[in-house]
Amino acid sequence: MQSDHLSVTFAALADPTRRAILARLARGEASVTELAKPFDLSLPGVSKHLKVLQRAGLITQSRSAQWRPCRLEAARLKDAADWVGEYRRFWDESFQRLDDVLQDLIKKERTDESKGDRHDA
Amino acid sequence: MQSDHLSVTFAALADPTRRAILARLARGEASVTELAKPFDLSLPGVSKHLKVLQRAGLITQSRSAQWRPCRLEAARLKDAADWVGEYRRFWDESFQRLDDVLQDLIKKERTDESKGDRHDA
Repeated sequence: MQSDHLSVTFAALADPTRRAILARLARGEASVTELAKPFDLSLPGVSKHLKVLQRAGLITQSRSAQWRPCRLEAARLKDAADWVGEYRRFWDESFQRLDDVLQDLIKKERTDESKGDRHDA
Repeated sequence: MQSDHLSVTFAALADPTRRAILARLARGEASVTELAKPFDLSLPGVSKHLKVLQRAGLITQSRSAQWRPCRLEAARLKDAADWVGEYRRFWDESFQRLDDVLQDLIKKERTDESKGDRHDA
């Protein structure tokens, strides 16, 4: 269910260390040891966070390479961005203006189309 | 702290009922009773969710009007959107192309400026 995905995603993002891990992975793949270092976390400590991120589908861990690198997966972040983006009109006046322009264009297109239909008939 | 705000915001969004309450408030102010109705929640049940949303700064409740309407507050949603938006390049190829064009324009501008500087000197 979409709502479940979103809840799990948002819950995974509700932690500064997990967000910092995603920010690190945005720069490229990293091993668990590499991820643990900057956060001064134990390996079990970082593994716990990685499991939450994996369960949320925000990262995957390779099984092929010996160093088993973690990598960022963007699809669930996109879902989260899409959800929050629905509220953009509440803070973005320029977005509202762009939306107005698009609505005007759509209206104009529809009017032109219906004129075309009458012409064809 | 920015990271704390974000953690509290994402935690508040990690629940389908709370997201549905925000979606309802996006259509306009509503009283607690009005918010409870579509979710088949008791008043204490909806109040619990509203408290989480209020603590996260995602909604406010008016103290002046007798029906004490709740309203959506967009600032924290914008912070969440800004954070997730940082990862847009991972899913949005057209955004990447736009970014490339902008980078080229910036480079060109800088080259033109430095040519201008040499000309002025």
